[in-house]
Amino acid sequence: MIRIAIDCMGGDVGLPVTIPASIEFARRFPDARLLLVGLPDAIEKALEGMRDVPRDRIEIVPASEVVTMDDSVEVALRRKKDSSMRLAAQAVKDGRADACVSAGNTGAWMAISRYVLKTLDGIDRPAIATSIPNQKGGSTTVLDLGANVDCTAEHLLQFAIMGAALAQALDHCERPSVGLLNIGEEVIKGNEVVKEAAERLRASPLNFYGNVEGNDIFKGTVDVVVCDGFVGNAVLKSIEGLARMLSSIIREEFKRNPITLLAGAIASPVLNRLRKRVDNRRYNGAALLGLRGVVIKSHGSADAYAFGFALRRAREAVVSKLLERTNQSMAQITQQGAQLAGRQGAQINNDAAVSMPHAAGDSA
Amino acid sequence: MIRIAIDCMGGDVGLPVTIPASIEFARRFPDARLLLVGLPDAIEKALEGMRDVPRDRIEIVPASEVVTMDDSVEVALRRKKDSSMRLAAQAVKDGRADACVSAGNTGAWMAISRYVLKTLDGIDRPAIATSIPNQKGGSTTVLDLGANVDCTAEHLLQFAIMGAALAQALDHCERPSVGLLNIGEEVIKGNEVVKEAAERLRASPLNFYGNVEGNDIFKGTVDVVVCDGFVGNAVLKSIEGLARMLSSIIREEFKRNPITLLAGAIASPVLNRLRKRVDNRRYNGAALLGLRGVVIKSHGSADAYAFGFALRRAREAVVSKLLERTNQSMAQITQQGAQLAGRQGAQINNDAAVSMPHAAGDSA
Repeated sequence: MIRIAIDCMGGDVGLPVTIPASIEFARRFPDARLLLVGLPDAIEKALEGMRDVPRDRIEIVPASEVVTMDDSVEVALRRKKDSSMRLAAQAVKDGRADACVSAGNTGAWMAISRYVLKTLDGIDRPAIATSIPNQKGGSTTVLDLGANVDCTAEHLLQFAIMGAALAQALDHCERPSVGLLNIGEEVIKGNEVVKEAAERLRASPLNFYGNVEGNDIFKGTVDVVVCDGFVGNAVLKSIEGLARMLSSIIREEFKRNPITLLAGAIASPVLNRLRKRVDNRRYNGAALLGLRGVVIKSHGSADAYAFGFALRRAREAVVSKLLERTNQSMAQITQQGAQLAGRQGAQINNDAAVSMPHAAGDSA
Repeated sequence: MIRIAIDCMGGDVGLPVTIPASIEFARRFPDARLLLVGLPDAIEKALEGMRDVPRDRIEIVPASEVVTMDDSVEVALRRKKDSSMRLAAQAVKDGRADACVSAGNTGAWMAISRYVLKTLDGIDRPAIATSIPNQKGGSTTVLDLGANVDCTAEHLLQFAIMGAALAQALDHCERPSVGLLNIGEEVIKGNEVVKEAAERLRASPLNFYGNVEGNDIFKGTVDVVVCDGFVGNAVLKSIEGLARMLSSIIREEFKRNPITLLAGAIASPVLNRLRKRVDNRRYNGAALLGLRGVVIKSHGSADAYAFGFALRRAREAVVSKLLERTNQSMAQITQQGAQLAGRQGAQINNDAAVSMPHAAGDSA
């Protein structure tokens, strides 16, 4: 069984989205067991109207508080200790669930899941990753999307490890290629942090492609694009903005007058296919990576269809052993780092070895 | 007369784009006088086939070298001192032209124009700005797009001054609102540099709106969006990539089979209007700001139609006195800074006033 704890109160809409999506999900995946976390009466009421609820695989976990979209991290973390968000993460911590999902306030969800679950060994900072559809018909994993500003080269390397594990787990890439987001032909190629990160990535066992630019996300040049959270967030919000503008312009033009409406009706099978191909609801569900548990963040404005995809991502991450993959890759790199340090310590400078006695000992 | 020096050799295509665009432009704007800079024989040959060339308003400026798209900044700047790019900037420096335009290599064009023209008083670093169409039917000026990575708060303030002057000059905003690109609801709101920049912008005479996010570029929340060049470049390239992917998907879907082709033919008036509304060729022409001269960069892949828009932007910037506006605004802010420093010097700490004797004297 795959056990998923769902914060049923989160998101712009809450229960009217999360409950139908959860039940539909439970029906579709007989291996799923759901912990519906939230105000118990409200959940019961939302369930009442629903048919074919697989009650044997559904458990209501009562929470007395709700983190709102406007709550500060401080309030969410310190004041609302019995929130549905908190208890969803706690269920994973306690081993009662394999993954947890919320459509609530991103900052609060990140802070709470980090506080409750802690980070994996060797990971300094969790990161937010999502899949963006690309021209090759697949998707590109991009991280970090806003959990971290002011990253070091070491952080970018860790993001690469986590992102590659996610692409392996969710997109079934055998050996995902990793690109480092940089600026192109322009005056100065990248800042110091990015340059150092490129060197470290090149030396790592990861399948490092090299620098990529923003358009490579859509070209599908690499499987994973790594950047700091400030850049990633600006890019993500910008492309969301452009997509929204374009779809509203398309609607406007087809609704201009009776003739364009007719043209739209005639073209509707094509327009529907188009809409389906670029429907970002099918890519809903960002992963909060680097934590000791599978944590998924749904878009706050997700509808039930979109929220269902976030639940699928949670399930898929558990099935394909995302955490084990991340841990393995992290261990490999730590070991390699230790060996390298050891070799350098032994060969180049015996003084340097003093500060890394184990590493030096291994290679000596 | 508005005199524009055109690097006719620049861009992916060169003369077959720049010459027809230049002649069309000269015909359309009788107040334009063009300096066509490049290999003289090649320019003459390109002109031969053209009708109605207003020879009295066209001068060929011979250059013996061409900066290629692959030339390093070093090569462009130090080795090719008689390049068409260099001589186009030199024409502005010598007062023989009011503006210069190139579709060549961005890095080289920035380095050369900066080297030849120098920066305006008070500007530490030039920046690259462009207009991006927004949902309100207008456009949003975004800078920096890649000239500067690792910016300080002072640099971001200077970008805001330059960007506001550009929006005044080209988009005829009386008092452009300025937004600072930041990350939203996510965990940590912005890095230290952005926080400090926000404070300085708030204290400035600029019409500072506050923080904005990537999607606000398309919403048209503000007239000018300021960010560092790394972020701006990543955003610009990403939205270019998404736009390219979407237009290729639309083409693909309408070309799928005879029925969709027919639907496309019927919907073609709508699709053409759509294409026109989002045609980025009409927004071609980034401004290299902060230099002692109007310097415009056309997209390297621009066709003659698009290159014509870059020429228009150059003309418009001269007509609407972009440089004077930037200088004025810069002087205002420097003065305010001096007054503030003076006031602080006089009121709070007499020691501080010692290092700013004039400012302190003014307010005392």
